[in-house]
Order: sequence, then structure tokens, then C-alpha cells
Amino acid sequence: MKVLITGFSGFVSKHFLDYLEINAHGAIVAGTDKNAPEFEFNNYQNISVEFHQVDLLNKEEVEEIITQFRPEYLLHLASYSSVANSWIRPVESFNNNVNIFLNLVEQIRISNIKCRILSIGSSEEYGNVTEGEVPLTEDHSLRPVSPYGVARVSQEMVSKVYADGYGLDIIITRSFNHIGPGQKDIFVISSFAKQLVQIMKSGSKSGSIVTGDISIVRDFVDVRDVVRAYFLLMQKGKRGEIYNICSGMGRSLKDIIVEMSNILGIEISTTIDAARVRPDDNKLIVGSYQKINREIGWEPSIRIEESLRDIITFWQERSATP
Amino acid sequence: MKVLITGFSGFVSKHFLDYLEINAHGAIVAGTDKNAPEFEFNNYQNISVEFHQVDLLNKEEVEEIITQFRPEYLLHLASYSSVANSWIRPVESFNNNVNIFLNLVEQIRISNIKCRILSIGSSEEYGNVTEGEVPLTEDHSLRPVSPYGVARVSQEMVSKVYADGYGLDIIITRSFNHIGPGQKDIFVISSFAKQLVQIMKSGSKSGSIVTGDISIVRDFVDVRDVVRAYFLLMQKGKRGEIYNICSGMGRSLKDIIVEMSNILGIEISTTIDAARVRPDDNKLIVGSYQKINREIGWEPSIRIEESLRDIITFWQERSATP
Repeated sequence: MKVLITGFSGFVSKHFLDYLEINAHGAIVAGTDKNAPEFEFNNYQNISVEFHQVDLLNKEEVEEIITQFRPEYLLHLASYSSVANSWIRPVESFNNNVNIFLNLVEQIRISNIKCRILSIGSSEEYGNVTEGEVPLTEDHSLRPVSPYGVARVSQEMVSKVYADGYGLDIIITRSFNHIGPGQKDIFVISSFAKQLVQIMKSGSKSGSIVTGDISIVRDFVDVRDVVRAYFLLMQKGKRGEIYNICSGMGRSLKDIIVEMSNILGIEISTTIDAARVRPDDNKLIVGSYQKINREIGWEPSIRIEESLRDIITFWQERSATP
Repeated sequence: MKVLITGFSGFVSKHFLDYLEINAHGAIVAGTDKNAPEFEFNNYQNISVEFHQVDLLNKEEVEEIITQFRPEYLLHLASYSSVANSWIRPVESFNNNVNIFLNLVEQIRISNIKCRILSIGSSEEYGNVTEGEVPLTEDHSLRPVSPYGVARVSQEMVSKVYADGYGLDIIITRSFNHIGPGQKDIFVISSFAKQLVQIMKSGSKSGSIVTGDISIVRDFVDVRDVVRAYFLLMQKGKRGEIYNICSGMGRSLKDIIVEMSNILGIEISTTIDAARVRPDDNKLIVGSYQKINREIGWEPSIRIEESLRDIITFWQERSATP
């Protein structure tokens, strides 16, 4: 299989490569990103991997990679994926979610390349929901409340039009908050883990961290389960269909901090910084994975306690080697 | 009142100026467009009007017009508004609907200018609906099926986020198919009218025209009613709210052709050109104007027969002077 991965330098891509290495011997992968990856990608034994520095906002560069590589599968991970930053730079967030995707699918359309596309969306598309509405199924209405959420719904609608109107082979996901080792500390769980590890390493048995609103509840799913879902959708997903990828369980950020503190054996107090509370944040997002389970047999396999332990181990090893 | 009109060179803008001339003495208007207007705008007695050639995709140009003129009202008419052309050039359609709007609202946000913004949307946002679902109210789900429709929903979601998240004063419309004298013949009713007038002028009592799918039903509203709604929304609309602007009546394109043929006293046969049938067109769109009627007292005042007569008169006068 020939797979093009956009957003190659992110941690989801790294885990997807690890999955292919075991489950897709002979796969040929080309990756694109604006920035070179920080992980090693030349040591895989069973797959071949090459990297191209590409700005997906540049149509000529998109044309070159698509027409040269001619992918059979496109895993479109590239995204300006921080909700918080989307409030600060909304236009950049919009362009780097929607316009890059448009450039890709349009190039595949006009080049008439037979390629199965995975359009990765987000649980942020659902927007504010009430307790009575969760777990969210795919037919729930979308009311995005952040620039990032809006951009993701736009991408999804573009996907639908390219699938239904132009006949492209596009499968759409709404991926809930993924967590796992290797995630950058601009994302909340990774940031908490890194801070807690620093407190423990300092030799202290207690400490405090500054947070945004930690009462918000999210559905956290391990990145290794997520990439397995992506691979299975490439094989068995239905064209034009939308699939939630989630754990089906809601956890507050506060719960996660307590859980990680227990793993590390430290006491943590939290202080809320009003500046980190977003203008109009979703209080609660929990998904249902019944559809993807029914259609392709996927379900999450990694419990959150295991994810959190692995994230902590990642930061422990990372901070040991300066 | 200081009003900035984007898409100044279009026929809606011309009718809005005519409305201001009578109803808003002293209004100061700045208009922007990529192309200079073909109508005369220096002869108004009661309002002052200036024109600036601006590419709204160019952020520097957007900054200049917004910070120099400092509008109290923004009537955002600029749009790549042809559904048919959006299938041919989807990326251009997307950029010239969503990205130009983003540039404008972002500039108003960062310049901290107090300005009431009318974000003009479209009935195409609703997508395919069944007979049981019409007339469509504003809370009906949006399932756009064309690149143009997708772009309009994106613009609307951006409007909601800028209103609810950043506190901008934005009012949102879903304007149904407007018709009226002066509309370009890339739009379907105007195109039919022009062709029928040409047949009549040739001295023939009968003729034939080539069309796309004329069984589709739309809700046609006269542009003069539309601009009155825009003016009233500027005065009395509620921030962050969405308003249908429509006639509440559905008419098939076939009905319209028969009606105009009767006005001209000619017999017309139609031939369907498969190439003009769009990939995935909405069969039926009819709206409800109950919300705007209830909240600001607007209702359509011009019957479709009157609109069609005026459109025919426009083309008769136009074709008389080569």
C-alpha cells in the first residue's frame, strides 16, 4: 500500500508508522510536513518511509507531491490543532485546517487519482452539549463554538461535497481528544504530565500547577487505538461516512490530574488562571463509538490509566536526557 | 450612518443605494469591489457614495479600508455567488466566500471598531430537503450539497463564533434566490428573461431555449424587498441571530418560464442540456419568513409577477440600446 501522510511530524503520524511497521509489511509511505520530524523514521524494517517538506497552502507544492507520489491512501493529519491558539490566530487556524485540505482534495480530483482519503475531524465539531445529549452519536447536530471547531466542520462539509458531488473516495472521522506518549506539551494532558514529573523530579512530595478550567469533561482516547482505527477505516470504512473515534467515557481534567498525581505519589493543588479560560469553551464532550464498532469492529483497547502511565514514563525519560 | 458595502458592483448593492437615497438621507457610503461598478453612483442627491477597488483576499487592502473608513455598518455582499461555477472552481468559490469574510471580521476585531455587520448567507445552506420539511425555518439542519453551500455555512459558523466568542455585533441572513432588474445573466431567471426578450425582438411568436433541470423549485424574492430587509436588520436585528429572507412561496423554473412567456405573448419550448444539470442539486427550497416578520416586522411586498415584468422591461430596454 502507498500511503501519503500529511502532518507527518506530529505524534499521531509516529504512532501510525509504528502500527504499519507491525501490521502492513511492504507499505510505502511518503510524509509531508512544514517542519521536519523530531523522531527517527529511517529505522523501520518492514516499511519504507520518506519525508518531504511541503507547505500545503502552496498549490504548486501540493500538485508536485500528489502527482509524483500518486498515493493510494491519504491520511490527512495536518492541522492547526490547538483550540486555544485558534482563538488567538483564528484566520491562521482556518487556513491551516480548511484551505490545506481543499488544496489536497482538489488536486486529487483534477489529477483523477484513485485514492482513499481519510479526512480527520474533531470532537470539537459538536460544540456545547448538555449532559442529556451524551454520548454523542454521529447524527448529533454540530454547533462548533471555537474557530478551530468551525474549521473542522468546514473540512467535513468539504469532504461530503467531494465524496457525494465529485465521487471522491473520502472517509470522515471525528476523532476525540487523543492522548499518548510523544504528544507535545501544548496539549493539556501532556502539559500536566510534564509539570507533575518536574515536581516529582525536584524531590518534592507536593506542589501546585496553574491551569485553565479543569472542570471540563472530555473523552480521551489513546493515540495507539486511534491509529488502529485509521488503518481499519482505510480497509473497511464506507465512502462518505462519518465515524466517531472515542473511548465512550468522560473524564474531567481534574480527575486526570488526581490520577497522575497518584501514579507519581505526589500531592498536587491547582490554581485557575482566568487568562487560560477560553472565551466560550465546551463544558462536556463524550462520544459514542457504536457505529465504528458495528461497521468495522473497532473498539478502544487501552485503558486511560495505562495511557497516563505511558505519558508519565515518556516525560520521565525525556527529562532525564537533557 | 456610515456604511461599508462589499461587493459594491453587484445589483444588490445598486438597489441598496437606491433604498438609502430615499430612506436614509445623509448616509455616507463607501463601496469596495474587485471590479468597478457598471452603474452610475455619482448622481445620488441625499447620500454620499465613494468607491474603492479592493481585493478582499489581500489583508493589507482590507486593513486600509477598514481603518481609514471606520464603518458603523458593514453590508457584506461580496461573494462568489454562482452555485454552478462553484462546482467548476470549488477552491476559488471557497476562498472568495469564507476567506474574504474572515479577513474582514478579523480586521474589525483587531482594530476594535464598533461596527454592526450583516453577514449575508444563502438558502443553499439548507441543501436537499423533502416536501415535508418546507417551509424551512432557521432552526432546520444545514446539509449543504454544493461547494458554494458549504462555503456559506462556513461563513455563518465563523459569524457565530465572532459574535458569541469575540462579542462582535454580527447579524446573519440566509437570503433566498433574489431576482430583479439589473441582475446579471449568469443567474438563471435573468438568463431566461434575456433569451425570451431576444426571441420576441426577433419578431418570432415562438422559440426554444436550452436549459438545465427546470423542475427544481426555488423561493424567489425581489431584490428590492431584500435590501429593505437588510436596512431594517441594521436597525432592529438581534446580535448573533440568523434570519431567513424569502417569499415563503416555491416556484419551479418551468413555471417562471411559462409566466414570462405569457407576459411577452410568445410560445416557448425547452430542451434540457445534460451538461447544465449539476452533480448534486437541491430539488426544492422554500423558506419561512416568520422569524424576521415577528422580530422586525418585515414581509415581502413585491409579487413575483411584478418582479418578472420588471426584469423583462430591464432586458427590453437594455437590448434596445446596443
